[in-house]
Amino acid sequence: MTNPEYLSEQVKLVDAALDRVVPPETQSPESIHRAMRYSLFAGGKRVRPVLCIAAALTVGRRVEGVETAACALELIHTYSLIHDDLPALDNDDLRRGRPTNHKVFGEAMAILAGDSLLTLAFQVLAQLPQVDGETRAALVAELACASGTVEGMIAGQVRDIEGEKMQATPERLEAIHRAKTGALLTASVRMGAIYGGATAEELAALTDYGRRIGLAFQIVDDVLDVEESSATLGKTAGKDAEQQKITFPAVYGLAESRRMAAEELGAAHAALLIFGDRAARLHDLADFIVRRKA
Amino acid sequence: MTNPEYLSEQVKLVDAALDRVVPPETQSPESIHRAMRYSLFAGGKRVRPVLCIAAALTVGRRVEGVETAACALELIHTYSLIHDDLPALDNDDLRRGRPTNHKVFGEAMAILAGDSLLTLAFQVLAQLPQVDGETRAALVAELACASGTVEGMIAGQVRDIEGEKMQATPERLEAIHRAKTGALLTASVRMGAIYGGATAEELAALTDYGRRIGLAFQIVDDVLDVEESSATLGKTAGKDAEQQKITFPAVYGLAESRRMAAEELGAAHAALLIFGDRAARLHDLADFIVRRKA
Repeated sequence: MTNPEYLSEQVKLVDAALDRVVPPETQSPESIHRAMRYSLFAGGKRVRPVLCIAAALTVGRRVEGVETAACALELIHTYSLIHDDLPALDNDDLRRGRPTNHKVFGEAMAILAGDSLLTLAFQVLAQLPQVDGETRAALVAELACASGTVEGMIAGQVRDIEGEKMQATPERLEAIHRAKTGALLTASVRMGAIYGGATAEELAALTDYGRRIGLAFQIVDDVLDVEESSATLGKTAGKDAEQQKITFPAVYGLAESRRMAAEELGAAHAALLIFGDRAARLHDLADFIVRRKA
Repeated sequence: MTNPEYLSEQVKLVDAALDRVVPPETQSPESIHRAMRYSLFAGGKRVRPVLCIAAALTVGRRVEGVETAACALELIHTYSLIHDDLPALDNDDLRRGRPTNHKVFGEAMAILAGDSLLTLAFQVLAQLPQVDGETRAALVAELACASGTVEGMIAGQVRDIEGEKMQATPERLEAIHRAKTGALLTASVRMGAIYGGATAEELAALTDYGRRIGLAFQIVDDVLDVEESSATLGKTAGKDAEQQKITFPAVYGLAESRRMAAEELGAAHAALLIFGDRAARLHDLADFIVRRKA
């Protein structure tokens, strides 16, 4: 199967699982479930869940039901987008080519929809039917740390906001990216590994892989924001420069940023060597992340 | 020990545990930890953690470390207050006698501080050092359900917002309260019971107790909003009527509301009979919840 076919099949698998874990629009109170589903089913690439599933398959000791665990990553990712887009934060009107959540449902409902997706993510992990309590608790802890204020997504978000007024330095850039995007992408791979029953050695290798593609993902994101149009990205292009965000192109220039992404990609491939052919999907996904156009 | 002394000792125990689980203000990024701690250490009564600890003691098979689990309830409660007070929601300037979180730190930081407390609540439960994985996962699931959109706090919040434009009926009132305040208070008791190693019979009795005091708590809250001054409450009094919220006094009148609270209190005491003297603290806490003046 070629890579685009694999990806589209995986997206369908994840979407079906998401549809099972999120209350239907007919469930009272209907408005909040409509708002949650609006942003959740808006054509996301499902990069994080797909990475999680591929990591579990690479380890291979337990894979049944991993797509349900993978949903938690997309719930967290979507909550972060809804809250990031709010007027008080990035004040964005467009996301994945459609009006942002607060533009459609109002700010109050957008705040609550984000809170709801965040809460549901942990409920889904805590109630996974096919794994023992120790694994469920470990998955909750992993996702909470990756989303939190110390080394997680919110730490990156806060540093990003505060960085708008500061000089762009390599150190600040590193601190922002590692937390803001890197932590959740790394957790995607690690959660798949934990679900899959990884040994300590396997988990270390997959953590290395996760960090490398996390960094590459952010570099590519920053480069695309400079190079591509809003139509291609499905969100407002050029916002980083306008908001004076600290980005890889701003610190290193476009050419060096592209070289850095390629270097991380190479290191990500190398981290997978211990798995041999079993890591084929993770190799493909690394290539996809670096070569994407949106 | 008299009840006020017991309560002040319990508040100290909970505050010390909260101080251990929340990153210090010196932890980078400092601003988010300052914002989290500002609202967390603002003189809250710690009703939910104290109920949780007392329920674990009543069951009595495991109590060591329960105050750490109890912290998760206060983290959730505080996140909900910060987000509720935002301009897009209740737009409140005053909370526990002090300016609300967004008044001090700005809306962006208040949104993120709420998100952070919500995330940390689940991290704390998932990483509890003294209980097995099954119990940790059960506690996460319990708290997530009680905070969520189906029968939890967010369901109540959404119904409350939407109810502002609707006629006040007993059915709407019941649906709002059960979810908005009742779910988290019931979960406080149930989580303590689960931590304490409750049998099915004990858990059922404590769930009944939790529902009764949850209802009584909300009735008393609504009555106090009518009767007391902003100075006594530490928040803006009379907001319910101004915002045309569906409340117990609006539906039943003050006298009947007070009678209902007393009836629930009686039923709460009755639910504890199977525990004999072991439930002394829970009896006291029920009385405290109904007789409080703020």
